[in-house]
Amino acid sequence: MRITLIGSGNVATHLGAALKNAGHQIIQVWSRNLQNAALLAYYLKAEPVDDLSEICPETDLIIISVKDDAVETVASFIHLKNVLVVHTCGSVSMQTLEKYFDTCGVFYPLQTFSKMRELDFRSVPLCIESTDKNSMALLLGLGQTISNNVTYIDSAQRKTLHLAAVFACNFPNFLYAIAADLLSEQQMDFNLIKPLILETASKVQSFLPAEVQTGPAKRRDMQTMAAHLELLQQQPEWQQLYTLLSQGIIKMDEPPLA
Amino acid sequence: MRITLIGSGNVATHLGAALKNAGHQIIQVWSRNLQNAALLAYYLKAEPVDDLSEICPETDLIIISVKDDAVETVASFIHLKNVLVVHTCGSVSMQTLEKYFDTCGVFYPLQTFSKMRELDFRSVPLCIESTDKNSMALLLGLGQTISNNVTYIDSAQRKTLHLAAVFACNFPNFLYAIAADLLSEQQMDFNLIKPLILETASKVQSFLPAEVQTGPAKRRDMQTMAAHLELLQQQPEWQQLYTLLSQGIIKMDEPPLA
Repeated sequence: MRITLIGSGNVATHLGAALKNAGHQIIQVWSRNLQNAALLAYYLKAEPVDDLSEICPETDLIIISVKDDAVETVASFIHLKNVLVVHTCGSVSMQTLEKYFDTCGVFYPLQTFSKMRELDFRSVPLCIESTDKNSMALLLGLGQTISNNVTYIDSAQRKTLHLAAVFACNFPNFLYAIAADLLSEQQMDFNLIKPLILETASKVQSFLPAEVQTGPAKRRDMQTMAAHLELLQQQPEWQQLYTLLSQGIIKMDEPPLA
Repeated sequence: MRITLIGSGNVATHLGAALKNAGHQIIQVWSRNLQNAALLAYYLKAEPVDDLSEICPETDLIIISVKDDAVETVASFIHLKNVLVVHTCGSVSMQTLEKYFDTCGVFYPLQTFSKMRELDFRSVPLCIESTDKNSMALLLGLGQTISNNVTYIDSAQRKTLHLAAVFACNFPNFLYAIAADLLSEQQMDFNLIKPLILETASKVQSFLPAEVQTGPAKRRDMQTMAAHLELLQQQPEWQQLYTLLSQGIIKMDEPPLA
């Protein structure tokens, strides 16, 4: 397929690379910043552009892969008819694109991407949605050339899926950052805790999180929890987080009120 | 070495198995519940006991591997002299054992254990501490027979390390449970989000968490955050968590006040 890539961030970079490796042709890469467009375009053997009016109409698919809150602005500047346009965002509904395009959809890869880290795209779940059956078939086929896990997810579900992803990825990463800070305060290396982080995430590949919950809150160890809160005296926000998360773990085991 | 194991929980089970596999002899397994003692003892080819006065004095090392808040009670019932006694708990200081034994120490494996899950003990960091040089040498040597990562960590550091482990393991697992709940409410499978969880934990094996933080809070996407809070209207505790964690991520990037 001939594909136009709008954006040059983490998702655009990984998705572009996966599509090119699967044999598709990326014809243009747009970025607000021409240098960023040029960098990614060079790698993808595409033409870099920084003006949305330069988007070539001879394309099979336009992928808008910019920050969630920029999708609509970018879409409003693309004046092409008869081209399928998708975005790659978790939190933006398909309706946002329907205001501007007759046939459109969503092509949302559920993963956390960093430019500096390689990743096997085949294991990335791709959530797709579209305005019509033809587009759906096209997106499904395209998705399957790069991922083993392509699923239909509607806009309402995707909103919740994106929220769940924040709880499963962004927030745990922030808790890792707190752990790193605590260790460094006491002259301990973050390396010490890396196997624990990996095993915690590995466990829930085979079990439900609620089945493998451990720790002081799980075993109602009030003495340890009190000692931990005391250790956090200088960090009232972390203390508040500790309390709220522990209360949540305790509540998880309680039967719901009748 | 001839080793006595006090406890039959997750840690005792994994540690006992690792020690036995490394060629050490587990001579007795104690549990409050004789059936539990018998189960683990059978597997370790040891004698099960449920009375601490039956602990055989002809042992090189007694490992107390019970819940953190039970260590002191158990220790107070072991009336043996000239035997090295260690515990395996993150949150219990060595001083707790010094009240009852002349030579003692700590042998703390920093990992989350479940009986139903196998684990390569060689990758588990072992944190050791002891009252004297001889015991330290013995524990270091013993540790190295089962782990590639044996480190001296004093009681003050270990307290913080244990707290960091709660932030790096127990709390992320609870957030995974919230994600699972959100998905199931919208008829989506937890499988969808498993690659994301694993990649998030894998990333911080090579980068510091603060370097790879992503998500709406990181990019100050107020619109998405507001939409997420609205989705959580029926779960005020999760809403509160969402706010607190997002504020923490935003604050992480701010320069500290002068």
